[in-house]
Amino acid sequence: MPSPFADLIDLLHVLPPGDEGAVAAIRARDRQLTKPPGSLGELEALVEFLGRWQGKPSPTLDNPMVAIFAGNHGVTDQGVSAFPREVTAQMVANFTAGGAAVSQICALHELNLRVFELALELPTGDITQTAAMDDRMCAATIAYGMEAVAGKPDLLAIGEMGIGNTTVAAAIYAALYGGAGADWVGRGTGVDDAGLRRKADAVDRAIALHKDALDDPLAILARLGGREIAAMLGAIIAARQQKIPVIVDGFVATSAAAIAHAANPASIDHCLFGHVSAEHAHARVLDAMGKRPLLDLGMRLGEGSGAALAAVVVKTALHLHKNMATFSSAGVSDKG
Amino acid sequence: MPSPFADLIDLLHVLPPGDEGAVAAIRARDRQLTKPPGSLGELEALVEFLGRWQGKPSPTLDNPMVAIFAGNHGVTDQGVSAFPREVTAQMVANFTAGGAAVSQICALHELNLRVFELALELPTGDITQTAAMDDRMCAATIAYGMEAVAGKPDLLAIGEMGIGNTTVAAAIYAALYGGAGADWVGRGTGVDDAGLRRKADAVDRAIALHKDALDDPLAILARLGGREIAAMLGAIIAARQQKIPVIVDGFVATSAAAIAHAANPASIDHCLFGHVSAEHAHARVLDAMGKRPLLDLGMRLGEGSGAALAAVVVKTALHLHKNMATFSSAGVSDKG
Repeated sequence: MPSPFADLIDLLHVLPPGDEGAVAAIRARDRQLTKPPGSLGELEALVEFLGRWQGKPSPTLDNPMVAIFAGNHGVTDQGVSAFPREVTAQMVANFTAGGAAVSQICALHELNLRVFELALELPTGDITQTAAMDDRMCAATIAYGMEAVAGKPDLLAIGEMGIGNTTVAAAIYAALYGGAGADWVGRGTGVDDAGLRRKADAVDRAIALHKDALDDPLAILARLGGREIAAMLGAIIAARQQKIPVIVDGFVATSAAAIAHAANPASIDHCLFGHVSAEHAHARVLDAMGKRPLLDLGMRLGEGSGAALAAVVVKTALHLHKNMATFSSAGVSDKG
Repeated sequence: MPSPFADLIDLLHVLPPGDEGAVAAIRARDRQLTKPPGSLGELEALVEFLGRWQGKPSPTLDNPMVAIFAGNHGVTDQGVSAFPREVTAQMVANFTAGGAAVSQICALHELNLRVFELALELPTGDITQTAAMDDRMCAATIAYGMEAVAGKPDLLAIGEMGIGNTTVAAAIYAALYGGAGADWVGRGTGVDDAGLRRKADAVDRAIALHKDALDDPLAILARLGGREIAAMLGAIIAARQQKIPVIVDGFVATSAAAIAHAANPASIDHCLFGHVSAEHAHARVLDAMGKRPLLDLGMRLGEGSGAALAAVVVKTALHLHKNMATFSSAGVSDKG
């Protein structure tokens, strides 16, 4: 019987390349703008990033989308979160009603917000006892996540909501990179010392239980992951195929990118890491993948908030590229 | 005869304190917002910063202002810039016409931009040959800068324009913190290796010429500084007295804050450092003052661009604080 992951593995390896012609056109315009070459630093790189992965010499941000994927987790039975599981659904309602941080970042800066609920009433299996999902469910959830890009955004910022999911992400990192649970867990929404020990212990038990089945990244995702993480992986995969640059949020969202990276590092070349989380192991994961985050603001909220804030910087960078004067139009003397 | 700096020295030492009652009120509201406590990291600290220095338990950003101070420098005769001196005035016109990077950051994010020209037709003295200004001119220019806050902004981001002024700022840092010119100069607008050597040499010669007159911070400013730096110092001083929080831009703008800091470190407690510049010695100056920049985006443009981008983050932080739902209003369960 063929693996339900066969098509996905193809998509992780047959990748549209970046458009270096678009980048060259962007650099040519940049050199004419009224500023010393290179003086906008990362803002210049961000415009090139947009152009490279959109395949557009004049990049657009007509439809920037922040997508939040929400799922519930059986591992919350192990007392790994400071908040009760029902908060996942309550926060989904809050996203839509405009009360959450990410809702207000999007409202202020005119980013489109979409929320994808993933069977909140059916938490994944408790990973200390059983697989989170079977392979078929995992593949179906990845496919569902691929639909997130159906609205043809020209930039996709991805984030998540799911009580318990920093424990799940820590388990994925332990499986991908080795080490003990204590190396990868943090305080998440704010657990106390006992909660932190329960998180580390849950990761250790999950790794011990599943150790013979963690031989490839998609198996790790199915055994240890969550629906929202699988869906974010799908969104990342589909975005690459459809020429949509991606901004990845923090500690949990990065676990979806880490699964793709473990399958093929080039498969996330179209992903920008919006910020480094205060959840301490996030910096370690970014290091392991050789990625540098855009912002470092001590945020650890999830729900796409760091990615959305990074999208504001990207939007600003493109606005400057499109609207600044050139040396000749402004009558400014160029470098002597 | 009394020093023309006597009143300024008083203002640097008789300082309105921060309003800790306002901060307590902000923290009380923050604890009710639908997010784990502390999870917005620096964004939470930024709202407290606004409240502390505005003296308002409910901070405002009704009139956020980006102020750019422009001056010309005799030291450009020493071949220290990649651009000719007339670019200062050309860029002032570009700021107003909307063609500069800072103009477009302000336009996109609804920040008010004001440009203060400081006798561009009368460059300061070439600091390798003479004093930049006499004490009376320096004091008058500081007083002019104090007028920048006359429009009652509730946030003041300060930046500058002045061909040659990274050399001037480097000379100020060498005088304040010791070391040779080579420790403090960088490529500025993009000088080549020979230009970089000319900058270091100009700083060394200026320090040697003025060494017996660099015994206090305001003397350093008069001997080695520039009109735009003196005016920024005035803006910083006046802002404190008038309860206006300040965001300081990069390598050159920070030299104005460093003068105040050297006179009295507490005199810049109301200043936030918007970003760390790619001009390498900026990080060293911030370290010397014990300040942590908000952003690190490899920018080195000046003209207030980094401070304006930081103001966008501040504006976003306050928007979240004011507009997010509370646990009770959104029906979200609080921490268990």
